[in-house]
Amino acid sequence: MIAQTLETPYYAVIFTSILNDKINKEEYAKTAFRMVELAEQQEGFLGIESTREDIGITVSYWKSLESIKKWKFQTEHTLAREKGRSEFYKAFKTRIAKVERDYDFFIKDIK
Amino acid sequence: MIAQTLETPYYAVIFTSILNDKINKEEYAKTAFRMVELAEQQEGFLGIESTREDIGITVSYWKSLESIKKWKFQTEHTLAREKGRSEFYKAFKTRIAKVERDYDFFIKDIK
Repeated sequence: MIAQTLETPYYAVIFTSILNDKINKEEYAKTAFRMVELAEQQEGFLGIESTREDIGITVSYWKSLESIKKWKFQTEHTLAREKGRSEFYKAFKTRIAKVERDYDFFIKDIK
Repeated sequence: MIAQTLETPYYAVIFTSILNDKINKEEYAKTAFRMVELAEQQEGFLGIESTREDIGITVSYWKSLESIKKWKFQTEHTLAREKGRSEFYKAFKTRIAKVERDYDFFIKDIK
């Protein structure tokens, strides 16, 4: 789903990653699902978009830098991120960005 | 590939999209490929990351808002965007964001 975010400005965390060749895929999927579930409960969470082919891109949207910081240090998330480094990911890059403008296009009724 | 961008700050264009059910996939792939090729030739282009499952996420990185604006109005890109609205996409959202911080993790030698 395309995230229905608020009016700008708001913040985006762009997380791009490459999985290790040998991982427990079930455990990874479970952890990824749990992190979305947890993020949704955080104050300031606005939405998330995620997809993976050879690389994975997950963009989560937040009201403020403060809400991103709180999410970063949420205990269960911190443990999952440690597992990310030690087991799941071969490489990743995290970018914190301020969304200054946005626009969209939706076909409501396709005939 | 994870884009190897410069030091912050720089800009990201986060483009999230859903394809129409009936499109000419070959034409779409050709257009998408051509747009990456063209973007790479633009002044201020820093890199691009792209992946698609049920939604597609493409993040392109740019030196400045000025370089994004020039890319937006590049003639061939403008034509492709019109085709995007009229043929390829059911919905999309474009977000222009200033990347304020980034950090990464790369395993160089996996034994």
